[in-house]
Amino acid sequence: MFGLDALSSAAYGPEAALTLLIPLGLAGVEFIVPVSAAIVILLAIVYFSYRQTIEAYPQGGGSYTVASENLGESAALLAAAALMIDYVLTASVGISAGVGALISAAPALQPHTLELCLIVLAVLTLVNMRGVRDTGVVFMIPTYLFTLTLLVVIAVGGWQTVSAAGHPHPLTPLPATPTVTMAVSWWLLLKVFSSGCTAMTGVEAVSNGVMAFREPTRKNAKTTLTIIIALLAILLLGIALLCRAYGITATDPGSSGYESVLSMLTRAVMGHGWFYYLTIASVLLVLALSANTAFADFPRLTRAIAHDGFMPRVFQIRGRRLLYSWGIYVLVALTAILLILFGGVTDRLIPLYAIGAFMAFTLSQAGMVMHWKRQGGMPLRMALNGLGALATGITTLVVLVAKFTEGAWITALLVAVMMVAMRAVKRHYMSVSREIELHRPFVPVEVAEPIVVVPVDGWSRISEKALSFALSLSSDIHCVHVRASDDPDPFIDGWQENIAAPLRAAGRCLPKLVTLKSPFRYILHPIVDYVLNIERETDTRKVCVLIPELVVRHWWEGMLHNRRSDLLKVILLMRGNRRIIVINIPWYLGND
Amino acid sequence: MFGLDALSSAAYGPEAALTLLIPLGLAGVEFIVPVSAAIVILLAIVYFSYRQTIEAYPQGGGSYTVASENLGESAALLAAAALMIDYVLTASVGISAGVGALISAAPALQPHTLELCLIVLAVLTLVNMRGVRDTGVVFMIPTYLFTLTLLVVIAVGGWQTVSAAGHPHPLTPLPATPTVTMAVSWWLLLKVFSSGCTAMTGVEAVSNGVMAFREPTRKNAKTTLTIIIALLAILLLGIALLCRAYGITATDPGSSGYESVLSMLTRAVMGHGWFYYLTIASVLLVLALSANTAFADFPRLTRAIAHDGFMPRVFQIRGRRLLYSWGIYVLVALTAILLILFGGVTDRLIPLYAIGAFMAFTLSQAGMVMHWKRQGGMPLRMALNGLGALATGITTLVVLVAKFTEGAWITALLVAVMMVAMRAVKRHYMSVSREIELHRPFVPVEVAEPIVVVPVDGWSRISEKALSFALSLSSDIHCVHVRASDDPDPFIDGWQENIAAPLRAAGRCLPKLVTLKSPFRYILHPIVDYVLNIERETDTRKVCVLIPELVVRHWWEGMLHNRRSDLLKVILLMRGNRRIIVINIPWYLGND
Repeated sequence: MFGLDALSSAAYGPEAALTLLIPLGLAGVEFIVPVSAAIVILLAIVYFSYRQTIEAYPQGGGSYTVASENLGESAALLAAAALMIDYVLTASVGISAGVGALISAAPALQPHTLELCLIVLAVLTLVNMRGVRDTGVVFMIPTYLFTLTLLVVIAVGGWQTVSAAGHPHPLTPLPATPTVTMAVSWWLLLKVFSSGCTAMTGVEAVSNGVMAFREPTRKNAKTTLTIIIALLAILLLGIALLCRAYGITATDPGSSGYESVLSMLTRAVMGHGWFYYLTIASVLLVLALSANTAFADFPRLTRAIAHDGFMPRVFQIRGRRLLYSWGIYVLVALTAILLILFGGVTDRLIPLYAIGAFMAFTLSQAGMVMHWKRQGGMPLRMALNGLGALATGITTLVVLVAKFTEGAWITALLVAVMMVAMRAVKRHYMSVSREIELHRPFVPVEVAEPIVVVPVDGWSRISEKALSFALSLSSDIHCVHVRASDDPDPFIDGWQENIAAPLRAAGRCLPKLVTLKSPFRYILHPIVDYVLNIERETDTRKVCVLIPELVVRHWWEGMLHNRRSDLLKVILLMRGNRRIIVINIPWYLGND
Repeated sequence: MFGLDALSSAAYGPEAALTLLIPLGLAGVEFIVPVSAAIVILLAIVYFSYRQTIEAYPQGGGSYTVASENLGESAALLAAAALMIDYVLTASVGISAGVGALISAAPALQPHTLELCLIVLAVLTLVNMRGVRDTGVVFMIPTYLFTLTLLVVIAVGGWQTVSAAGHPHPLTPLPATPTVTMAVSWWLLLKVFSSGCTAMTGVEAVSNGVMAFREPTRKNAKTTLTIIIALLAILLLGIALLCRAYGITATDPGSSGYESVLSMLTRAVMGHGWFYYLTIASVLLVLALSANTAFADFPRLTRAIAHDGFMPRVFQIRGRRLLYSWGIYVLVALTAILLILFGGVTDRLIPLYAIGAFMAFTLSQAGMVMHWKRQGGMPLRMALNGLGALATGITTLVVLVAKFTEGAWITALLVAVMMVAMRAVKRHYMSVSREIELHRPFVPVEVAEPIVVVPVDGWSRISEKALSFALSLSSDIHCVHVRASDDPDPFIDGWQENIAAPLRAAGRCLPKLVTLKSPFRYILHPIVDYVLNIERETDTRKVCVLIPELVVRHWWEGMLHNRRSDLLKVILLMRGNRRIIVINIPWYLGND
């Protein structure tokens, strides 16, 4: 399960690199091998770094935790912003690449790429909102299947390559080689490397979740990390070597002739039979499930950030089924926006992706350097994490520069905006808590009973209930009734009989009847003006406004009621000040 | 202004018909003339019918009014549903056809059809939400320009056709004639007629708005109607004849080679110069403005339906600038959905369109027959409106059958669903008003003072304010404090000093301190359980729950607060019953 996200990156990383090599024609495929080798070297460095993170943070060392504990607030916020973007892109790219595999196997679906992406997103959302129980097997089988089928492809392809002295013949015809429109340049290779780096996303999963392993947790986590990194390296190098051997060039993403690199590779090596469809199905599943990891990680991250006061508190509220629902809502909304903006095409999302992940890598490694320093030296460990920080830091810069105009600027801008926003949120919460803090005991003042205003539009059970409650609060009650015309008004005509007489008979104090004229049939404004006027004329007494509110049994009934009372409450709160208190008198439909 | 909607239909009606004739190749263009002639005959019948509506309803006789006054509830609801759909499609088709003109003149914009449609919708929404002042001139100039330029095209084209003995040569080359893939059939011609009927939408505008005319209103309205219908007939026949003469076939809508019929016609007759761009600009403007008429009509209609109790009351609330804002929100949302679903391509929207308009025509004419019958016979007038009802009724059926599988089923289904929903809304309002009606005087019962529950998370100015108010309501106060752990708790430790001592000194009654343990750090559930428990244990006393609420100065601050208190209120309302009353104590940030 921890390898899911990392291994699935092999499905889009090499392809992202190959896509940029299209303009070089068949010659471009040559470059995929050295670029992949460079990525695998980087992967090895990151591997040793993360082994140390596991050692130091057995309770789970995500980039945000490590950065905030070791590098201070700014670095923590940078990590927070980078990680949030990273998770949103994990979801988006997982879905779009999965759908990319699907439309490679069924090209007739290609015009519906975006719709398919949104359907997958909707399914993931539903599954996650209902809560996922016992996901182990669901996650395990596709991950094993994905790794196994790809390893078989690589083994068979490697054998055929060797047998054919380096020039195997594809079993099914590949698309035409693209025409050469560009010469190779260092700049292009930098961009290819930057895109290929997306193959490394997700390797931090093990160190984030050390606490989920069985005892001895650290050892098991490290073994798992070793297996995952080794498998990923084999997949990346294997795919690169076979693409060169079979001469597989990427196809134009988003166009009608699109076919994913893994799809072409599988059918070149294994033919267009059942094994091909099994592989494509496992790719689709694994990518959808890797998108699903964002549904677990994103809400957990936003909860942690909210807990530190940098995001709205709503992200801390656990809803039904113990979920941090708001984190999921925001993730789904952002993912949907990204998918729609970029048409569900993986290649257009790639430039935004690697930068967030590598920023988080860098901060995590840099945080580990500080961690070892504080632990009292440990120069070897410091050096190892320092190397990791340096390598990923340089890569971050390379990706930022190489991809800047193609989309990395969006990520960079977003990170900056989010950091400013998170600081503003924290500042706001701090200022509120300063404003309300109180360092003296209670000062009980003898206050007069409140003035109670009861807007009444007619004599009904609801007005009776409101009036009853008003009588229990105060003896100074104003019944406010709005009239639109001079026609006879049953409420005013019935006032003596329905209200005044029975109260007088019971020896209770009488409410004051206030009639407000409203020539333009506005209902709310006369009431608001009257209440504000009362507040202005009195000095310390509270003004309670009793507004009936219907409590409905079905959500759709809710759309039919209470808008006017909600509006009255909002207007009173906005225009009033601290002495007006709105009290909603609930009326339970069918029950009261 | 009243002609805007009707005349602008000439921009998409003939094209909708011609698009269906594409498979017939050049031979198909021959059929546009008899089909247009049939539509103009129908138009003439409708013309005489609406003259009589003007006569009978000088205060404005929309289909909903006429049907509900003369044909009863079911017909009124049918008209209401048909009209709502009609207005949404007026907005959608106006926008999509306007953008269609734009992309004809600037084919490079074709891939951005949907985005352009949504931009136009956004502009219309903004203009309408800000309120439109003195729109006369804005509407007049484009309408005159549109009519004039098209009349010039028809006149010049007619002259050239006559000069060239019926076979004029286009000034700029037209797209290649489509290949023949189908033979003509009656079924196809029925579909062509049904699509062409969209050219008649909007002719009811004059009879809806008779009251807006100068005295003598009826006479002026009738003259205006005559002019509009005559112009529309000339435009429809002129376009049909010229398309035949120049051999203009429609282009494939939604494809990259799309060009609107009016665009081809204009440049065939007038060349590709300034006059062409002037015509296209006026077409774009007039269509956008015709979409704008829906922004006036739809909210007015929903207000009328809501006034009769068939739609949520929220449609009756006038917001800022005297607008029925909810009507506009709903119109914009539905229009956006339609545009997105159908990719902003007019041709895909057409099958949904005519049916709503013709259903409304039919009901309006049928209502007029009943109107004259009630007026005591008037056989000639009855016959005239009867003929109108018959002709439009048959057309409705033809459109429904011919377009059923292509989209009319959506309209039919929607009409049925909306009618059921509107009845359900009315039933609900009726049942609520029966439930709350009261035919006896007030029964004042001596009630004990309420139990007041004050959830407090710490000693702050807000808790002080809440406690103060609680003391003014009752002497039975429960201060509820939730503890997540057994660590020392400053609120409990300070209880004696901060609250109990000062109250005892002032001789006031003491609140009860209630501490609730919450091992899972839930805050709300323990409070809810406590309140429900109190309610269960007491018999008649009200339970007031005082919840502090922060009143913020900026909308974005609102996102940072009150979610938890809102949630507490909702849960208490849902799970509690009629004796729990939630009182929000407002705290004005920076002001209290």
